Amino acid sequence: MSLDYSSKLLENAVEEMSRFPGIGKRSALRLILHLLNQDEEQTVDLAKALVKLRTEIKFCKNCHNISDSELCEICQNSNRQSEIICVVEDIRDVMAIENTQQYKGMYHVLGGKISPMDGVGPQNLNIESLVNKVRDGKIDEIIFALSSTMEGDTTNFYIYKQIQDYGIKTSSIARGISVGDELEFADEITLGRSIINRQPFENSLKS
Amino acid sequence: MSLDYSSKLLENAVEEMSRFPGIGKRSALRLILHLLNQDEEQTVDLAKALVKLRTEIKFCKNCHNISDSELCEICQNSNRQSEIICVVEDIRDVMAIENTQQYKGMYHVLGGKISPMDGVGPQNLNIESLVNKVRDGKIDEIIFALSSTMEGDTTNFYIYKQIQDYGIKTSSIARGISVGDELEFADEITLGRSIINRQPFENSLKS
Repeated sequence: MSLDYSSKLLENAVEEMSRFPGIGKRSALRLILHLLNQDEEQTVDLAKALVKLRTEIKFCKNCHNISDSELCEICQNSNRQSEIICVVEDIRDVMAIENTQQYKGMYHVLGGKISPMDGVGPQNLNIESLVNKVRDGKIDEIIFALSSTMEGDTTNFYIYKQIQDYGIKTSSIARGISVGDELEFADEITLGRSIINRQPFENSLKS
Repeated sequence: MSLDYSSKLLENAVEEMSRFPGIGKRSALRLILHLLNQDEEQTVDLAKALVKLRTEIKFCKNCHNISDSELCEICQNSNRQSEIICVVEDIRDVMAIENTQQYKGMYHVLGGKISPMDGVGPQNLNIESLVNKVRDGKIDEIIFALSSTMEGDTTNFYIYKQIQDYGIKTSSIARGISVGDELEFADEITLGRSIINRQPFENSLKS
């Protein structure tokens, strides 16, 4: 059904709200009617938080992650191994890996993946600064942790070509069957790779 | 996984965004990262639209629908039948019925349903003004169009008790099998009601 609003203010708010990906006009209306049932303060707080973030947002000048300071906490932390860099797409990947507490190196946030379909080329991503870090000679290993899609693989390969001559170690995060998953439900490609890339049994005894 | 933010600004924005029903921390983060990839203007426009709506919102003094003026367009329209009132829960129901172009009467927006579980009693809804309209003697018919849930039925019955002595006509919107639906997939209660409340065949020949 088309939406015929009785209020221009309402229509305008729904219009703005439905510009988010995955939020249609109906969902936007539902969210906004919810706001109308809450204290005025809640709407004002939301608006302030969004505008403040958008206008004051900073990115770490070393790893390009979202940060409130010039250098993010991870880049400032002298206990981390600065010679290992994990290359990720965005802040969500950093948060996911940090959450495992298994990684003590640094990150490099590309800000996306090469995707000609979406008009994203290498020049739109933080690739040059990564290559510069490698060229400066203080990096031992680059870990590729992009999602294993066509765009992710393309991006990995593009970066690999740029750094391969510097003779540093490169690796990808392991792909395989999730811990706790049944083999019969795994997709063929993942199961195939997990057999080819099988690991010494002793590795599975570590936590 | 718990979310460990690298930015207080980001954390705060995600916090506010996830106060919407049905939007968790992860969805909120996804929406906000989207905003960061758009022009600053989009965030400012969204924030302005929400605050402007919330602070300047008006409700029609006659039917209680959201409106930009004292009386909404429907209540102002002298071509509509002011002696018939359709009782609905919120603006979405008004929009849905208006969209059918089959109704030329007025509305009365309750603003919710009686729901003791959610702390909503009759005094929280626009019921008194509806009863007053009936008492004033200018109403011929009340059409109940709340959803047929326990709360909807309770609310209908509560209102019915208040107005039954004024001798006006009361009706409910027809419940039955949706146009185009197969009988075999209909639920028993709806199918049962649609047989009991069968209509003269000639009615189905109208558009």
